[in-house]
Amino acid sequence: MNTPTPSSSNVQWLTLFDRVSDSNLSLQSRIRKMLVSAILSGHLPPGAPAPSSRQLSESLGIARNTVVFAYQQLVAEGYLVSRERSGHFIADDVLRNHVPAMAHEEVKPAQHTDASWQRRMIFHPSRQRNIVKPENWQSMPYPFVYAQFDSAQFPTAEWRECCTRALSVLDIRSWAPDLVTSDDAALIEEIRSQVLPRRGVWAEADEIVVTVGAQHALYLLGDLLIDDHTVVGMEDPGYPDARNTFAHRTEKLMPLPIDNEGLCITPTLQNCDYIFVTPSHQCPTSVTLPMERRVALLELVSRSDGIIIEDDYETENRYDGHPSPALKSLDRHGRVIYIGSLSKSFAPGLRIGYIVAPRELASELRALRRLMLRHPSSYIQRAFALFISLGHHHSLLRRLSVLYAERAAELTKAIHQTLPEFELIPISGGSSCWLKAPAGVDTEKLAEAALVEGVVVEPGHVFYHHPGPHNKNYLRMGFASIDTNKIPEGIQRLAKAYHHMTQASTHHSATPKRLRTP
Amino acid sequence: MNTPTPSSSNVQWLTLFDRVSDSNLSLQSRIRKMLVSAILSGHLPPGAPAPSSRQLSESLGIARNTVVFAYQQLVAEGYLVSRERSGHFIADDVLRNHVPAMAHEEVKPAQHTDASWQRRMIFHPSRQRNIVKPENWQSMPYPFVYAQFDSAQFPTAEWRECCTRALSVLDIRSWAPDLVTSDDAALIEEIRSQVLPRRGVWAEADEIVVTVGAQHALYLLGDLLIDDHTVVGMEDPGYPDARNTFAHRTEKLMPLPIDNEGLCITPTLQNCDYIFVTPSHQCPTSVTLPMERRVALLELVSRSDGIIIEDDYETENRYDGHPSPALKSLDRHGRVIYIGSLSKSFAPGLRIGYIVAPRELASELRALRRLMLRHPSSYIQRAFALFISLGHHHSLLRRLSVLYAERAAELTKAIHQTLPEFELIPISGGSSCWLKAPAGVDTEKLAEAALVEGVVVEPGHVFYHHPGPHNKNYLRMGFASIDTNKIPEGIQRLAKAYHHMTQASTHHSATPKRLRTP
Repeated sequence: MNTPTPSSSNVQWLTLFDRVSDSNLSLQSRIRKMLVSAILSGHLPPGAPAPSSRQLSESLGIARNTVVFAYQQLVAEGYLVSRERSGHFIADDVLRNHVPAMAHEEVKPAQHTDASWQRRMIFHPSRQRNIVKPENWQSMPYPFVYAQFDSAQFPTAEWRECCTRALSVLDIRSWAPDLVTSDDAALIEEIRSQVLPRRGVWAEADEIVVTVGAQHALYLLGDLLIDDHTVVGMEDPGYPDARNTFAHRTEKLMPLPIDNEGLCITPTLQNCDYIFVTPSHQCPTSVTLPMERRVALLELVSRSDGIIIEDDYETENRYDGHPSPALKSLDRHGRVIYIGSLSKSFAPGLRIGYIVAPRELASELRALRRLMLRHPSSYIQRAFALFISLGHHHSLLRRLSVLYAERAAELTKAIHQTLPEFELIPISGGSSCWLKAPAGVDTEKLAEAALVEGVVVEPGHVFYHHPGPHNKNYLRMGFASIDTNKIPEGIQRLAKAYHHMTQASTHHSATPKRLRTP
Repeated sequence: MNTPTPSSSNVQWLTLFDRVSDSNLSLQSRIRKMLVSAILSGHLPPGAPAPSSRQLSESLGIARNTVVFAYQQLVAEGYLVSRERSGHFIADDVLRNHVPAMAHEEVKPAQHTDASWQRRMIFHPSRQRNIVKPENWQSMPYPFVYAQFDSAQFPTAEWRECCTRALSVLDIRSWAPDLVTSDDAALIEEIRSQVLPRRGVWAEADEIVVTVGAQHALYLLGDLLIDDHTVVGMEDPGYPDARNTFAHRTEKLMPLPIDNEGLCITPTLQNCDYIFVTPSHQCPTSVTLPMERRVALLELVSRSDGIIIEDDYETENRYDGHPSPALKSLDRHGRVIYIGSLSKSFAPGLRIGYIVAPRELASELRALRRLMLRHPSSYIQRAFALFISLGHHHSLLRRLSVLYAERAAELTKAIHQTLPEFELIPISGGSSCWLKAPAGVDTEKLAEAALVEGVVVEPGHVFYHHPGPHNKNYLRMGFASIDTNKIPEGIQRLAKAYHHMTQASTHHSATPKRLRTP
């Protein structure tokens, strides 16, 4: 078994087989994967005999039939050829058009580049201030993170049904080609007729542009509309990703104050070319902009020749039963650009969102998107169109909304009971809350301390344009990813970390004890 | 049936049912879709009785069981409630959180915007010169278009298998959350260990960045590395999408001459900060850059502090059996940025590609991508990882390569026989060819005339930096989307259009007869 000749018998099958065991595959798929890898890496060279199915089934302790089926597929796909009475052989032309293998060391490029990349970069996006979550948040017992993912709520059967249906011959024919500037017409129609009317928005198909999530919508708008002369008003505190996207194009960001009803409508807003606003649930405070302010804002931009960029996220999560119509639905002068997300609620990793904009802008956004990436994956678009049309999307959103309302109530109770010295903005919707710790508390340190207790919370300073001592004591807590029944214990542990920290800082005066970071 | 009261009996079910008939759905799904639509649009208001399953099955002429199953699902998803002995009713809270419906006219926003969008746009991507295909090219009998889609070659069963597997509980857990700056680790591993070694490229996981297709890779590089001081060298003729992407960032594009061996390595290249090159198959001529020129190019940029952007597309389609190693595989100084596509070969609409770049650049590209759109859909990433690891991808590429070689031979023969006055650059790889018509022929007019014959060809002028009379007589013809046995007739018809056009122009001297455009 140990002589290094390139025949099939000396490959240590069990070792190779174990190497593909991490993946979540059937036995037959694992055999296929193992052999493909051995063939393409040159371990089983062209023309060499494959191990007999009997031999392989014995080495691996697997039913012979399983091996035989895997071999049949490999023959069909051209990896193996079967010769009567002699067994299976690696196909002669299997490595055709491969650059001949050289020793890895010989071809490895220099690890060090002499091209001084730092000097070459126009800007450094990695240096922008942004929300940072611990990488292992999913394995933490109390993840109060925002807009992430609750595997228990994923609509597996429904999404699978739509993905499979989108692979019918007729469907493939319509989504598989490069759509160039277009979108999947079926998805546009569902957004137009099912999704937008719930927000009171009526749009034509050519006013809708599909994006790779809401983030992509912001980037397209920034790239097309904003240069270094453009004044962009941003809620403060506000959404860091929007701030960063617009900051990439202009230095003229104007922080706009908010209060417990959201954006304050002040004369200053007249100086903005664009105003980015989150009226459904202000990010990060989750408060809803009242109708009077909506009307006032629309009147203001109409007078000042301003444009509103409305990020209307999580509109379905409204717990008091009084949905506010989108700004876009009240817009009589074509001054609102509307951004929506589709996948955020159940699988942010899917990345699908959209923009509703006046026709001439939408058309140019589509041309820019073509230049940037053509279009969001049309397979995902088609699957999502089915997901909406069969009623799964609406049903899911309703279910999540009920669940989040329960969690919001549980969280409110726990905070009032366990952390009475914290101020909580009443939660009327959304999937996160905004919490003010007593003055002097540094929530970044609190978040570190909480993490040691298995609790993930998000320090609030990143939401502020000018982070400073006066806004170090805010905290955002999401509840889309934490089980309802874990909320009380999570808050208990947060309180423990808080009390430990404040006692330590009382004892050691100005220099608080450095807590262990994970 | 015609009284307009909001009860279920007066809904004209057969009409509604016919309206959802265009989609490729089962009867049960069509019933579901129809009822969801009727409920969400308010035709069946909350609390109203649903039609009895007997009534609906009779109206539609469908087995009662089919209706019963559809109703069960609608109950499970909260659209209907079932009351014993009274039948089904629309759920009371089904429109919860919807903005109350108003008359469509009442809420429709102004069709005219007073925001003067043209003035607001920083640039007009729609005005860039680009490849334009007739929208209905798929229904044309002789589509010689580039890199599109041949439904007969789509690996339906294999892709479906991978999409379904990617929906296992374990898989969902790993792809569904927002990955922020990351990619799916499984896909990165397959690109690193299976895809790149075929090109002689060895990279570490942190040197690979997944993109929404190769176009997205170009855009990221342009946004991060190119400003109005940057000199970018481009093959001329060359790839219009790359030219447009870089032209968006700098006016200093330097056209670089090519000949029958691809990019000419001249001292002028030393003046470029970046050189965009397509060495495997020069776009649009399809010629392969020989080894000597590869080595010379790498030496040149190393001396001149230049960087190469290598678009290594369709490397698997090489018909003479002598693959050239990628420039990236020969790079000893970290001066090559490598761009690859994964989905282009069988479903461009999937949109998945990647960049291989030195570590510090890759890291900043990932931060920029986060700002732009977070990451390409991680569901597609996971499905593609499986598609590669199970051997389907490699097997498909080999199959297509054999098929394209056949088509290339057929096309060469047909052109030599039928259009001997046209010069064809010998096809050694790729999925398109480059054809020079006799001087004086305007291929844009030829393409229009051919379309009347059902033949789609692409005029070549768009590939030139400076389109003019001297380069009006080129043509690109793709053969990825046309059946092999249709090629001879397609060329016959092209010849017919050509002869008709040239005779017409001879007869009418300087003003050629205007041909009917479709």
